[in-house]
Amino acid sequence: MSTKLPVGILGATGIVGQRFIQMLEHHPWFEVAWLAASDRSEGRPYAEAARWRLKTAIPANVAKMTVAPARPEGAPKIIFAALDAKIALELEPQFAAAGCAVVSNSSALRMQSDVPLVIPEVNGDHIRLIETQPWRRKSGGFAVTNPNCSTIGLVLALAPLHRRFTLETVMAVTMQAVSGAGYPGVASLDILGNVIPYIGKEEEKMEEETQKLLGTLNGGHVDPAPFAMSAQCNRVAVEDGHTESVAIRLKHKAKPEEIIAAWNDFRDEPQHLHLPSAPEQPILYMTAPDRPQPRFDCDLGAGMTTAVGRLRKCNVLDWKFTVLSHNTIRGAAGAALLNAELLKAKGYLG
Amino acid sequence: MSTKLPVGILGATGIVGQRFIQMLEHHPWFEVAWLAASDRSEGRPYAEAARWRLKTAIPANVAKMTVAPARPEGAPKIIFAALDAKIALELEPQFAAAGCAVVSNSSALRMQSDVPLVIPEVNGDHIRLIETQPWRRKSGGFAVTNPNCSTIGLVLALAPLHRRFTLETVMAVTMQAVSGAGYPGVASLDILGNVIPYIGKEEEKMEEETQKLLGTLNGGHVDPAPFAMSAQCNRVAVEDGHTESVAIRLKHKAKPEEIIAAWNDFRDEPQHLHLPSAPEQPILYMTAPDRPQPRFDCDLGAGMTTAVGRLRKCNVLDWKFTVLSHNTIRGAAGAALLNAELLKAKGYLG
Amino acid sequence: MSTKLPVGILGATGIVGQRFIQMLEHHPWFEVAWLAASDRSEGRPYAEAARWRLKTAIPANVAKMTVAPARPEGAPKIIFAALDAKIALELEPQFAAAGCAVVSNSSALRMQSDVPLVIPEVNGDHIRLIETQPWRRKSGGFAVTNPNCSTIGLVLALAPLHRRFTLETVMAVTMQAVSGAGYPGVASLDILGNVIPYIGKEEEKMEEETQKLLGTLNGGHVDPAPFAMSAQCNRVAVEDGHTESVAIRLKHKAKPEEIIAAWNDFRDEPQHLHLPSAPEQPILYMTAPDRPQPRFDCDLGAGMTTAVGRLRKCNVLDWKFTVLSHNTIRGAAGAALLNAELLKAKGYLG
Amino acid sequence: MSTKLPVGILGATGIVGQRFIQMLEHHPWFEVAWLAASDRSEGRPYAEAARWRLKTAIPANVAKMTVAPARPEGAPKIIFAALDAKIALELEPQFAAAGCAVVSNSSALRMQSDVPLVIPEVNGDHIRLIETQPWRRKSGGFAVTNPNCSTIGLVLALAPLHRRFTLETVMAVTMQAVSGAGYPGVASLDILGNVIPYIGKEEEKMEEETQKLLGTLNGGHVDPAPFAMSAQCNRVAVEDGHTESVAIRLKHKAKPEEIIAAWNDFRDEPQHLHLPSAPEQPILYMTAPDRPQPRFDCDLGAGMTTAVGRLRKCNVLDWKFTVLSHNTIRGAAGAALLNAELLKAKGYLG
Repeated sequence: MSTKLPVGILGATGIVGQRFIQMLEHHPWFEVAWLAASDRSEGRPYAEAARWRLKTAIPANVAKMTVAPARPEGAPKIIFAALDAKIALELEPQFAAAGCAVVSNSSALRMQSDVPLVIPEVNGDHIRLIETQPWRRKSGGFAVTNPNCSTIGLVLALAPLHRRFTLETVMAVTMQAVSGAGYPGVASLDILGNVIPYIGKEEEKMEEETQKLLGTLNGGHVDPAPFAMSAQCNRVAVEDGHTESVAIRLKHKAKPEEIIAAWNDFRDEPQHLHLPSAPEQPILYMTAPDRPQPRFDCDLGAGMTTAVGRLRKCNVLDWKFTVLSHNTIRGAAGAALLNAELLKAKGYLG
Repeated sequence: MSTKLPVGILGATGIVGQRFIQMLEHHPWFEVAWLAASDRSEGRPYAEAARWRLKTAIPANVAKMTVAPARPEGAPKIIFAALDAKIALELEPQFAAAGCAVVSNSSALRMQSDVPLVIPEVNGDHIRLIETQPWRRKSGGFAVTNPNCSTIGLVLALAPLHRRFTLETVMAVTMQAVSGAGYPGVASLDILGNVIPYIGKEEEKMEEETQKLLGTLNGGHVDPAPFAMSAQCNRVAVEDGHTESVAIRLKHKAKPEEIIAAWNDFRDEPQHLHLPSAPEQPILYMTAPDRPQPRFDCDLGAGMTTAVGRLRKCNVLDWKFTVLSHNTIRGAAGAALLNAELLKAKGYLG
Repeated sequence: MSTKLPVGILGATGIVGQRFIQMLEHHPWFEVAWLAASDRSEGRPYAEAARWRLKTAIPANVAKMTVAPARPEGAPKIIFAALDAKIALELEPQFAAAGCAVVSNSSALRMQSDVPLVIPEVNGDHIRLIETQPWRRKSGGFAVTNPNCSTIGLVLALAPLHRRFTLETVMAVTMQAVSGAGYPGVASLDILGNVIPYIGKEEEKMEEETQKLLGTLNGGHVDPAPFAMSAQCNRVAVEDGHTESVAIRLKHKAKPEEIIAAWNDFRDEPQHLHLPSAPEQPILYMTAPDRPQPRFDCDLGAGMTTAVGRLRKCNVLDWKFTVLSHNTIRGAAGAALLNAELLKAKGYLG
Repeated sequence: MSTKLPVGILGATGIVGQRFIQMLEHHPWFEVAWLAASDRSEGRPYAEAARWRLKTAIPANVAKMTVAPARPEGAPKIIFAALDAKIALELEPQFAAAGCAVVSNSSALRMQSDVPLVIPEVNGDHIRLIETQPWRRKSGGFAVTNPNCSTIGLVLALAPLHRRFTLETVMAVTMQAVSGAGYPGVASLDILGNVIPYIGKEEEKMEEETQKLLGTLNGGHVDPAPFAMSAQCNRVAVEDGHTESVAIRLKHKAKPEEIIAAWNDFRDEPQHLHLPSAPEQPILYMTAPDRPQPRFDCDLGAGMTTAVGRLRKCNVLDWKFTVLSHNTIRGAAGAALLNAELLKAKGYLG
């Protein structure tokens, strides 16, 4: 008999839901026990309900599972949520109120003051916000979130610099993969041979999430990091991997070799605790002049390592560089999974 | 008998050379009389020597023309040059010394102090630098250049703002089409489903050319514009059209409607003189929230209009917006052609 | 005051609807007077209701038109229909019954025995089937259809060979553009870097339509052409233009130069009558060994010319060749428009 | 000390050379000991000489290896060759004459009567042709080849049908990935949004190789299989995986379930001998109506399994279906590697 913890997936048929299933297939701690999706899918075998868009096959046990109604009754106590924001806003509180640990990839609750927005290598201490949640007191349930897929790679690259040199200004321009928009998502007639210079609410998310993630836990809320932050978001004809052109100003001046060392040496709790999904090296600086590139580098560290490259002087701020992160692994399913692993290691999952 | 001025094309078989031929097919003032390319092409009919990569057919008279040696002997007095920088550095001075008007798209001479770098709508007055060129005094020949394909759309968008509100800071991140790299240029294995965050020397060109174009003619040289400028250049899987995410700070504060009016109202010599290749409106502000896009908007004004969109507040500088410009028309062949038309209108072509 | 005939468009917001509007903008005989689409669009200005996906702008007068309910009341007497088959099956008979000339691009009625399926260069005489339609007798209305976008280029290439040499066998494998699936149509996650070897019902349509088009009018129905026909249909990452690898066996043996002459010399009623949308040359044989190609050749003859190339011996049948046709112009909107022009020339439009 | 057999790679810097290195990284029998490429690369560390285009990193030991001159002196006795045909024709005989086992992916010697053209699951017995090679008698060296990347998937799909039902006719239309053309290979300006209906000599290779592979060893040569075979080859914008639309006629009639069983049950020597690179299942029939697709299915069986789908009746021949095979793994480096493993198992590698 399995001694793994049973987990459920809300939004199991979408692109991120599929990544959860893929990443959980051989997970040492968790196993998929329950799947829910939209009404349309309810009651059907998963393999029929989902339009599977990954290169590996649907795990055999999951393929046969029946998609359950998206209600807490009968659901396991650990729930990975990959829902659209609007539905998440309705459903996630229901599951937390029912006593579930809701580990969410949705934007719905991210900026709520008592909900931790966490990248385990960056601000694992924010998890303590859970204790301030009313759900926690009443039912034991709670909600923890991870950032937007375009935020997470950026913040991983910023965190070690902020710790050592203190950020004053951040500007980021993204070139985001189509898988970030879900399925069916971006129409081929919209993106073949094209760039779309707009992704709804994405810039706002990147700006406010970055400051919360790098902010300071202060009792029952987080004081956002005080640096100025501006984002511009574009969609490009790439399947997986968000690329970002970044410029920063630092308070304490740094040499390029110090910045690169800050990236390559960066380790934190997930590495110290040997969490199963933690990459050995969260950030890898690539020395080739034309890297990182999404098609070749987004699978580094099984998609959990953020690649950085092209560090060079900026005429306006101090430094410019390129960041690449796998948007549905490190930027979504893997982000939530690592959050769950940290929660387990800290004793929040019973 | 034709009364059009005969022109020659140096580098006629490349992507920009092809655009010259296409744009000159029905030109009211100029007609193609001479073509030169690399040694490999010499002596062959153009239709055989060139791997034509445009949607319109090779003009019948050009198809049959024999590719001439790249020497001034026998060449017409007006030469459009679309050569690689290294070859241009060798050949363009030879043609200027032989009395030719060299209207060049190459980077070779752009930053030379006595060579005008010109966008007719922006700094047509810089053409007077010609008079300081030694070639001019000796043979009557001279050289005029246009900027890099990623610079020109940006500078068109900046010029009206600089005139009205004075730029203090400019940051630009490009997403450039593969046609900007010539033919064969970018390998398909490098760009399918990918972003390449590096284009050799492109960022340096954008930074220094922008300041020269918006600088001030001061006797025998140009004082560069004093604002700070930083560029990051990326290649994306787009056939034609360079898209740029731009942020600026202005000295004199402006309302968004004033900025948009500055763009839409912008007209200069090419429009006043009704130059044949001048777009009616050099800059068009698009109000849709997700435009401009290269696949749909790069042919505006027959490829000579720069599209701007998404003007919005920036948390770091003052304003952010998106610029799109056709890189082989407004950014290369059309740029040189408009320069030649301005030269003709000002009496420099005899 | 305009003397042009007012026309309406059913399904005006889709990709084919948009092509109708684009092709009718400067049409000498017809002008758009009425637009209808799904309930969702009804009552809204066209520019808001449609997600315009073409490179030319929405004609100003059309942009402001209000989308009407899809009912015959108030509609003009000439209707271009670009509806999904299921809706077409319901609506097209209503309009025909109300006295309209329904010129349809839908598959709904194509194979109905009393409905002409017409390519004007191929089987304009089939139009007489109209007289057998009950609608015609009751209200004067009727319905005429054009073939599927993957059928039409093929049949144009086959028709002159069938006339001169008699087809015995036809095998076609298609590589079809995404615009053939409408908008949003094919998801980018499905087609980037991919081939989809399946398009629902497409092979059946190609097989039966080809035989009806090349069949013989026999009183109140068409005897299908007796040759064997097999199709395999694939979707590829191309925006516009269906490419087909074709093999045929002929009853009467032919030399390659005779086949090429049959294609290049092919002219029929649309050319003799100088119909406004008729291409000067319906079929163009390209001699370059690697043409036709969709990106470079699908706009030949303003998208109305079918390109053929690579004629060579087949080890199994007699000949192999490649066919290319613009799928939303010659394969859809242009097909219907040319049908309407032929109807007008023959006196069917009053 | 390693007990693995040292192997060399001719053409080590190209796309197929890179796949050899990747597939040999953890190979249980062979290890890379020597690399050669063009003169340009000679004497440089491999990591500098090669433009690595795979998602996994260059193995550390290979990265530092110096590229050797392409001469037999100093080379190991087992040579994998991934050279252009013209160079292969010159170099491969030199290595065979010097006593090397040349396991070649090149087309140079494939159709030579005494050179085995082998797919281990299909015609492993043809390896005995080696004994008729003059090199073999003189130095012990020999040459063995694998088929073209577009042939191998097709022949794997045909072999079990030919064994059970006897092929009479085969027609194949390919949609081939750009990696099949090497690096830099296909220019992005040629293939973005495009199909190229021509690959030089590819159709001839497919036709004659298929007949040799399915032919009968008859003393010192192979009698080609007597069925008729016709191929049409197209290039599409896919990174990896050749897709083919195939139609066949069988001598002995078969039910669809018999055909599918012939595919799924197919096993041969590589599976019986448990060769390290042999896929458990050489052919997998996919039941989904729209599969196989290159982006999702080309890595089946670590790229060594050929996927088949869409079996259905053909109006002209008997059956139609779709074949997909990874062109640089099963179609090139993996093909040669499996050949080498079979040679080792049969005692040809000492």
